[in-house]
Amino acid sequence: MRDWKATVRSILDGDHPRFGRPVLFLIYAFIIVSVLSIGFETLPDLPPWARAAFTIEEIVVVAFFTMEYLLRIASAERPLRYVGSLFGIVDLLAILPFYLSLGLDLRSLRTLRLLRVFRLLKLTRYNDAADRFAEAWRATREELVVFFAAAIIVLYLCSIGIYYFEHDAQPEAFSSVFDSMWWAAVTLTTVGYGDVYPITTGGRIFTVVVLFVGLGAIAVPTGIVGAALARMRRPGDPEA
Amino acid sequence: MRDWKATVRSILDGDHPRFGRPVLFLIYAFIIVSVLSIGFETLPDLPPWARAAFTIEEIVVVAFFTMEYLLRIASAERPLRYVGSLFGIVDLLAILPFYLSLGLDLRSLRTLRLLRVFRLLKLTRYNDAADRFAEAWRATREELVVFFAAAIIVLYLCSIGIYYFEHDAQPEAFSSVFDSMWWAAVTLTTVGYGDVYPITTGGRIFTVVVLFVGLGAIAVPTGIVGAALARMRRPGDPEA
Amino acid sequence: MRDWKATVRSILDGDHPRFGRPVLFLIYAFIIVSVLSIGFETLPDLPPWARAAFTIEEIVVVAFFTMEYLLRIASAERPLRYVGSLFGIVDLLAILPFYLSLGLDLRSLRTLRLLRVFRLLKLTRYNDAADRFAEAWRATREELVVFFAAAIIVLYLCSIGIYYFEHDAQPEAFSSVFDSMWWAAVTLTTVGYGDVYPITTGGRIFTVVVLFVGLGAIAVPTGIVGAALARMRRPGDPEA
Amino acid sequence: MRDWKATVRSILDGDHPRFGRPVLFLIYAFIIVSVLSIGFETLPDLPPWARAAFTIEEIVVVAFFTMEYLLRIASAERPLRYVGSLFGIVDLLAILPFYLSLGLDLRSLRTLRLLRVFRLLKLTRYNDAADRFAEAWRATREELVVFFAAAIIVLYLCSIGIYYFEHDAQPEAFSSVFDSMWWAAVTLTTVGYGDVYPITTGGRIFTVVVLFVGLGAIAVPTGIVGAALARMRRPGDPEA
Repeated sequence: MRDWKATVRSILDGDHPRFGRPVLFLIYAFIIVSVLSIGFETLPDLPPWARAAFTIEEIVVVAFFTMEYLLRIASAERPLRYVGSLFGIVDLLAILPFYLSLGLDLRSLRTLRLLRVFRLLKLTRYNDAADRFAEAWRATREELVVFFAAAIIVLYLCSIGIYYFEHDAQPEAFSSVFDSMWWAAVTLTTVGYGDVYPITTGGRIFTVVVLFVGLGAIAVPTGIVGAALARMRRPGDPEA
Repeated sequence: MRDWKATVRSILDGDHPRFGRPVLFLIYAFIIVSVLSIGFETLPDLPPWARAAFTIEEIVVVAFFTMEYLLRIASAERPLRYVGSLFGIVDLLAILPFYLSLGLDLRSLRTLRLLRVFRLLKLTRYNDAADRFAEAWRATREELVVFFAAAIIVLYLCSIGIYYFEHDAQPEAFSSVFDSMWWAAVTLTTVGYGDVYPITTGGRIFTVVVLFVGLGAIAVPTGIVGAALARMRRPGDPEA
Repeated sequence: MRDWKATVRSILDGDHPRFGRPVLFLIYAFIIVSVLSIGFETLPDLPPWARAAFTIEEIVVVAFFTMEYLLRIASAERPLRYVGSLFGIVDLLAILPFYLSLGLDLRSLRTLRLLRVFRLLKLTRYNDAADRFAEAWRATREELVVFFAAAIIVLYLCSIGIYYFEHDAQPEAFSSVFDSMWWAAVTLTTVGYGDVYPITTGGRIFTVVVLFVGLGAIAVPTGIVGAALARMRRPGDPEA
Repeated sequence: MRDWKATVRSILDGDHPRFGRPVLFLIYAFIIVSVLSIGFETLPDLPPWARAAFTIEEIVVVAFFTMEYLLRIASAERPLRYVGSLFGIVDLLAILPFYLSLGLDLRSLRTLRLLRVFRLLKLTRYNDAADRFAEAWRATREELVVFFAAAIIVLYLCSIGIYYFEHDAQPEAFSSVFDSMWWAAVTLTTVGYGDVYPITTGGRIFTVVVLFVGLGAIAVPTGIVGAALARMRRPGDPEA
């Protein structure tokens, strides 16, 4: 009995010498098909046969994922642990909306299936690189939290500042501090759509000062993570 | 008498074993509430009860901050030193506008209370990361000053250049060198709202050259600070 | 016979002591002229004599490249190897469209000649720097692949997200998930043309969150390659 | 006689123990006033007295710079060497337009005076930081040349690409490959004014691909210079 469970587990995890890789690629193929179909279904003017095809594809995908989910529970040494684990919850969320929506319309919940995309990151070949990313994340986590907190404070202060400068001149675009945050975020990230921008002299001087100071505050962490990643490459190497 | 002062100080600084943390979190909560309310008050079409609530909240917050301020003076070993210190001035600026505005309208001065936000940075858990930021700042301060001076010179030269190219074609958008600085700042930071842009061939070629050269001049310090921060992490470590 | 082949090869490769450099610069000149003419031909309102000049220039360039191609085959020790090599294919693609277009119109295929531009990178003086670029690329290839895969996933997830927020408010700009990808790419790279941007509150909050998180995901690899490049400079140097 | 020359030189260079610093600051003040006035003169609707003040200021500045120029020649050990040096030419260009424009209008040439701004960089306190910038520039010069050449090639290739995609749909904005370069430069630097952007599906896909690949090509050198600068700080330090 135990052997049977271990065999199923090794197949589902892609470790089985004979069926491991084919099953793994089958699972990945289903994930990709399932995720891509969420996008393709939104294409306007789809012919009826395409709608029908998507419905069939949906049923096949959910049947496959349900079977995989049940097999994972059945083969797990401690089924409850798998059910409560991150991947267990993700796997359930990928199929649950289908069964719920048989009664009521919960189609948009299907996007939860996107979470399964993260399974793709487990591809063995790029495991080392992914590990280095994770390590760099751990090494710089505290700086990123401090930075993120600082970024939110800067964002809020900028919103209050621009509100006082621009509210009277553009009462619609800068109707409140929270509306001004849209401007602050679009400006500090240098996206600059051009739908809202200051027109008063005071607002413009404020923007220039904020940009020069704020850009540093937002761009710096990039350098931190990059440098940390570069150092991760050869842990024991004095050159690194 | 001394003991009483030391106890109050340790409570206000969050070091007291029993009341330290609760009081600290209370202070932080009041700061956050006070700062957030500055934003929420600007929401248009607030109902009368909300306006009343903000007035009450304002009185409670100022009463709390006033009490804290007076306690800090009373418990300080050298009260005048605290009053003249950075945090002492900030604490005073956070409550002063309220008392002044009882007579005249100084509501906008209340934004000075935002300065108290920096107290939030003293959260102990992220002290190390914040220290590293401060250290990286010290280590790269001179480069940043040189860079900042260079950035302002570049900004000014770009403004003069574009003024000569675009003034005749767009006399309103580029009415003077100082108006052109708005364009220069928005362009060199790559925000690019699209409210002002060159339309002459000469102005466009100038812009392309300036972008390729100027971007480096503005983007480089990011890398400097980032690399310095990365090096800060393990001061005694030859790998760092 | 062998000596003759070796001499021709050394001339074409620019190694010949007497004719090497002149021939090399001649080849480079023809590449640059050929590539620039592709651009100049598109200028509107060209006078007839300019059109004629471009036709003559086209014939001269193709004749020169054909002669070079045939000489390279004739002088190669193993002609088939050259024909099948990357540079052999590029050299053929640079002249083939001309001969094909004598019968049918394949002018746009002439842009394949742009591939010859990469010959320019072989200029000896900057070989070391180019080598370091190549080395840095090799050293960070895996991280870049992981990053690129992550960037595509992020792009896709952002497109689905914004589609659900904005489709009802702007059915034309966000008509499907794939149309939304245009918005996602323009936003995540911070280009922000301003032709499409969210107008709903939900869409704007989603954009702000995505920008702050996504920018890191896209900007980080820059730092990786830069840091790797910096380390490449002095391979045996413990300081590097 | 020699002593007199050496004294004047030490005064002009700011090394004289008594008059060095005052004279140096006087020179800097005149440079700053002269450069700022170029901007202020462009302000529209200047009253007549301001115009008169600028004329007087112009005469005073040129008189001062002329005197300084003559003193530098007179005190130089080898006057011709100073005249032919970079700073000698800059100093001449700063006053020449004034004397030439007594006859004809060469006001715009006055912007050459901006070159004197670079004298400001000689401020002693920030000499070390400026030296490190220069050293980092030398250390990464070759990479930057390779990068710059690659950036121009990428810019040109992108222009040809977008021209083929968008010329038919937007014959005005993309009228030729050289007009398309405006789009390419504004897009690759992520400025994105929004005055030109692709509207065809092909052009948009091309833009997305180009952005993801091209951004790296343009953003990478930033990291190179930053990392090089970080390394410059402590040349003999194994930690650096």
